Amino acid sequence: MSTTIAAYQLAPRIGDLAGNRERLVAAVRQAAAAGADLLVLPELATSGYVFASAAEARELAEPVDGPTAQLLAGVCRETGLTVVYGFPEAAGEVVFNAAAVVDGSGVLAAYRKAHLWGDEPDWSGAGDERPPVVQTAFGRLGLAVCYDLEFPEWVRLAATDVDVLCVPTNWPASARPPGERPIETANALVAGALNRVFVVAADRVGTERGVPWVGGSVIGGPDGYSLAIARPGDTEQLLVATVDLAQARDKRVGDRNDRVADRRGELYRRAGADDR
Amino acid sequence: MSTTIAAYQLAPRIGDLAGNRERLVAAVRQAAAAGADLLVLPELATSGYVFASAAEARELAEPVDGPTAQLLAGVCRETGLTVVYGFPEAAGEVVFNAAAVVDGSGVLAAYRKAHLWGDEPDWSGAGDERPPVVQTAFGRLGLAVCYDLEFPEWVRLAATDVDVLCVPTNWPASARPPGERPIETANALVAGALNRVFVVAADRVGTERGVPWVGGSVIGGPDGYSLAIARPGDTEQLLVATVDLAQARDKRVGDRNDRVADRRGELYRRAGADDR
Repeated sequence: MSTTIAAYQLAPRIGDLAGNRERLVAAVRQAAAAGADLLVLPELATSGYVFASAAEARELAEPVDGPTAQLLAGVCRETGLTVVYGFPEAAGEVVFNAAAVVDGSGVLAAYRKAHLWGDEPDWSGAGDERPPVVQTAFGRLGLAVCYDLEFPEWVRLAATDVDVLCVPTNWPASARPPGERPIETANALVAGALNRVFVVAADRVGTERGVPWVGGSVIGGPDGYSLAIARPGDTEQLLVATVDLAQARDKRVGDRNDRVADRRGELYRRAGADDR
Repeated sequence: MSTTIAAYQLAPRIGDLAGNRERLVAAVRQAAAAGADLLVLPELATSGYVFASAAEARELAEPVDGPTAQLLAGVCRETGLTVVYGFPEAAGEVVFNAAAVVDGSGVLAAYRKAHLWGDEPDWSGAGDERPPVVQTAFGRLGLAVCYDLEFPEWVRLAATDVDVLCVPTNWPASARPPGERPIETANALVAGALNRVFVVAADRVGTERGVPWVGGSVIGGPDGYSLAIARPGDTEQLLVATVDLAQARDKRVGDRNDRVADRRGELYRRAGADDR
């Protein structure tokens, strides 16, 4: 059975909730036209990223089942898509850097980023809950947000019992040697290989309040090779790959190995893997 | 202070202990001529990899301080190098897929591969000890052997408190899309980035008893980008990079983040990271 998975690399405008929601709806419609079953959108796609203050983040935050979820659920009802997107979550007095999964029935799950980057501690709480396994009509989704993906212990948890690891992200651009993929993109592909899952990382583009973004979106297979990758440059774009998600249920590598069964959890514990 | 780190990608001949030892000595001399302080050699470099039987592995095995260690220690005394190499270790009745670190003073440390690949369980015991931190005159070395590197929990342990992660390896060639690096090479680079250490992976080339090897040797920096990478094709070659190992002592990324301090070990434990 084939499933079409997609990422939309776009440029939200900081503070423009209404405009950004329109951009997200347009992206969902474009993905639907391309035949997608699943669309992943960037981190903080409703609000933009570079908040001037905690107050600004709070003003732009909404509850998990807020206006964006309701709007996207409506478009999902029309189009049949399942959508993953990042947004600032209002949870009482606290704001989290969160991601939600929405389909035509409403919000299926939400997740709060556990590894905070840069100035995020100034406006966001850190998530304390393991990423959920999200059951959908076509397969099981896992969630990680941006810097979470750089902690392979966490990626292991996020990727356990899922077919597609969905990664809303905002990767700041940094220097790299000519001809090299951004290390963040390379890491996303490797994360797929080491867990034998599909990975859909939706990055953003644009420069926001002086921060340039790398535009490193990628869809990777369970063998770690790219199925669709963003064209270089500061370009909004849709990435699409049609895949057999059942491949992610087979953790074998080579004739006698298995990415899950070959783990030596007891040895990791005894050696103190998580003692700091 | 600059340090020159090197990998020699070579093709041992299965069963030819004397010839392979000569090849290793020649590689050390070539690395010395290139100014290397550290040379990493492939997995099972003394023996070849594809044993026909456990008996053959046992015949080719030697103790940690056996003839190869003594031979290489002599060349290290002459040249000032420190050498890491893989060999089948004879330990009583058991054989291990091991790596040793040797300098002019003799054997500094040894390590037994903990994650066995393919038919290795038919001839090798699995290591049960955390990789050592090996103090040398120029820096601290960590060890992992081949498939070990595909378990990031283990890599985290191997890379803790080290400057260079040394990886003797034998990566079998497998299909990959045109233009892509072998996923094993990409993974080695990402392992360096996620732990902010240098990585030296010495792969082998040649086809042995029907198994072709990929020749994916690489030296990577703590930012995850390649400093030296094997030319494609079935080619023996020396890779060399002159680096400042102190970079691996600085775990910061961006202005406010740190690859070690940002880990959430307690959360990983609570979420059951190593429960299977």
